[in-house]
Amino acid sequence: MAFLQRYDNPPNEQLKTLLSRNLGKTQSVTKQVSAILDAVKEEGDAALFCYASEFDGVNLSSLAVSLEEIQAAEEQVDGSLKQALSQAYTHIHAFHAAQMPIGEQVEVAPGISLSRKVVPLNRVGLYIPGGTAPLFSTVLMLAIPALVAGCPEVVLCTPPGKQGTIHPAILYAAKLCNVKEVYAVGGAQAIAAMAYGTQSIQAVDKIFGPGNQYVTEAKVQVSSTTCAIDMPAGPSEVMVVASPFSNPSFVASDLLSQAEHGRDSQAMLVVQGEKTEGKDFLDRVEEAITNQLTSLERTEFLTQSLACSRAFIVPDLNSTAHIVNSYAPEHLIIDLGETEDDALLERVVNAGSVFLGPYSCESAGDYASGTNHTLPTNGWARSYSGVSTDSFIKKITVQKLSKEGLTSLAPTLLCMAEQEQLGAHRGAVAVRLGEEK
Amino acid sequence: MAFLQRYDNPPNEQLKTLLSRNLGKTQSVTKQVSAILDAVKEEGDAALFCYASEFDGVNLSSLAVSLEEIQAAEEQVDGSLKQALSQAYTHIHAFHAAQMPIGEQVEVAPGISLSRKVVPLNRVGLYIPGGTAPLFSTVLMLAIPALVAGCPEVVLCTPPGKQGTIHPAILYAAKLCNVKEVYAVGGAQAIAAMAYGTQSIQAVDKIFGPGNQYVTEAKVQVSSTTCAIDMPAGPSEVMVVASPFSNPSFVASDLLSQAEHGRDSQAMLVVQGEKTEGKDFLDRVEEAITNQLTSLERTEFLTQSLACSRAFIVPDLNSTAHIVNSYAPEHLIIDLGETEDDALLERVVNAGSVFLGPYSCESAGDYASGTNHTLPTNGWARSYSGVSTDSFIKKITVQKLSKEGLTSLAPTLLCMAEQEQLGAHRGAVAVRLGEEK
Repeated sequence: MAFLQRYDNPPNEQLKTLLSRNLGKTQSVTKQVSAILDAVKEEGDAALFCYASEFDGVNLSSLAVSLEEIQAAEEQVDGSLKQALSQAYTHIHAFHAAQMPIGEQVEVAPGISLSRKVVPLNRVGLYIPGGTAPLFSTVLMLAIPALVAGCPEVVLCTPPGKQGTIHPAILYAAKLCNVKEVYAVGGAQAIAAMAYGTQSIQAVDKIFGPGNQYVTEAKVQVSSTTCAIDMPAGPSEVMVVASPFSNPSFVASDLLSQAEHGRDSQAMLVVQGEKTEGKDFLDRVEEAITNQLTSLERTEFLTQSLACSRAFIVPDLNSTAHIVNSYAPEHLIIDLGETEDDALLERVVNAGSVFLGPYSCESAGDYASGTNHTLPTNGWARSYSGVSTDSFIKKITVQKLSKEGLTSLAPTLLCMAEQEQLGAHRGAVAVRLGEEK
Repeated sequence: MAFLQRYDNPPNEQLKTLLSRNLGKTQSVTKQVSAILDAVKEEGDAALFCYASEFDGVNLSSLAVSLEEIQAAEEQVDGSLKQALSQAYTHIHAFHAAQMPIGEQVEVAPGISLSRKVVPLNRVGLYIPGGTAPLFSTVLMLAIPALVAGCPEVVLCTPPGKQGTIHPAILYAAKLCNVKEVYAVGGAQAIAAMAYGTQSIQAVDKIFGPGNQYVTEAKVQVSSTTCAIDMPAGPSEVMVVASPFSNPSFVASDLLSQAEHGRDSQAMLVVQGEKTEGKDFLDRVEEAITNQLTSLERTEFLTQSLACSRAFIVPDLNSTAHIVNSYAPEHLIIDLGETEDDALLERVVNAGSVFLGPYSCESAGDYASGTNHTLPTNGWARSYSGVSTDSFIKKITVQKLSKEGLTSLAPTLLCMAEQEQLGAHRGAVAVRLGEEK
């Protein structure tokens, strides 16, 4: 059975099409989201209660989840998950703590001292999608860097379940990361609430987190006027780079674990090697996919995603590097053997997160190795980094000039101000040096 | 003559209104920009030539400025400006070089190695506005961090003058910073060209730089679908914090140098001190403004901006810190005496750039002290930092797990994948540890 559309070293013109993402945002999403944003902006909590009833099918008495409920969640989470979250927490915390920047200080000339002051964002909003399973891993991925950065106020919004409650694993993960404000609000309306503020939910400075196309569109809309966001988001994707001598079962499992995320997930495979060997390898990968599929659920997502997946056979590292950097994958798994892995990594410039060698599966990074799983999709890896401690921090530049420092700069400042025809800019210098009043 | 609207320690409710920016984006700007973006996307260069004729009043034969033209500019720039640009370059380069991040590497547990690979953006676009005077300082502020970051391709777009040429000071500054691609394209159409690409101008990964409301709207529109931008921008602004014992001429000159930027610039003054002394001080500041105004041009901008300026008298550091952080000024000048300056700086969390003490005038940072002058306006300092070397860099996370590393993580990964109901995520671990095929 053939799952992967195969392409043998396609020429550049064809490659562009083959590496494209098929995302069509419908006009109706834009309009619906815009209407939801307006409603929340104008009616506040009332709109949120209304949408909870309409979209989540629950009549809530309060949007805020009580501290008692958060405390109580601890008893409902089983010991093995607690232990798992604890190990994940340790690794994620360690890696994000190492990312904490220190403000630099430079005296560029006598009497001209420049520095950057590192400040955490004051109030951040984390969005955790609902759906079939509780995404507690995303709670860790967003709340731990906020904690490491030292953000004083962290808010979490997530849609209520049918009973109007939040899954205890979400609440437990939030508590683990010291998140004290949790609201049972989901969808575009949650983004609106965090951007504009309502009676119950105070506006935040930046919104983080994944979501469906309504949530994503809402984030993009508020980002242009009101509230910063982590990044524009799209469906998840992986590019696996293997050789004909890689383990086909490992490769199959990586493609499948991407494909199960959703029906629009994209899994790409690049086989670097000789043509005939590459074809044989692809046969073995497909065989492994067939085998592994038998024990998996989510078959609807898996088959739809796999149908859009592509496999390329390319002759050398040059071609591989070109495909990788052209696609700019969210996740990049490289398994070409140690020397060749390092050589390719050296040349990777567009990717969200890289997984090196046969034992670095994407699930490790998704959950617990310590890297962040909130990553740029849809080619945004060309310009964006994934979420990190940096994402929760601002750097304010500070300068202090002595009279000596300003004097040494004066000829330059006066000349530039004159040529840019800014007389008062000139004056601010002249008046300080006693040349004008 | 009273220039500043005065407020004596206003209550919190009133403060919110007093610190608001008056920005009304008209629906017509959104539509006009959207039409320009569509035209450039569809017609490419043809649309650019058309707009050059329509908006800039020139019929261009080529959009690209030739290397000869860039070389020739050197002879047309006078020696004093060259010397000024050279000193500015040295300071800006030194401070931005100090900002260059180093990717961290952490082994969070045996066999689990995590790191971040620091990569410059591949191709960046710098927009330099036209207008009455050549903004060569902005060329330095954008092109130097791109150079420091190591961006391989740097593109500069700026509107052509009436003769179809670019001011030699702009070209000279570009050459100084090793910018090799310069295009005579301005306005929203320049942003479109850099975002989508045309026959002459290849698309970039991120667009930087200030501009009028059309340019700003174009940046915001492309940022949601196609191309990253530095930050949403608005009119320039300053908040000056002084005591009744500060030098009123210095303060007046700072307010004026902000006000001359444009008719929508905002200059705010906070006087921290006793009420009567504060009033006396404000009188002296207004007297100094009157004096200094006589020698200034740009009176239209100055009077319109000053009319929207506000002065607050507040009793203590608490109130000052509250006003500063609520306003989140682009530029913050603090002159309360050394000890109090430091105490306030300690409490500043929302500001673009801070100028400490009597000799740190904004013009110093605008031009040549070394800090960047591309800063968050309109309250965005709550969530954005100014442009820095960071803005030209991505950080790609990398992980490498040994079999031992994956084994130690396995129970956690299997547990989390099961609870999130992601069977293939579970499988990718199990198959690697020989538990499944």
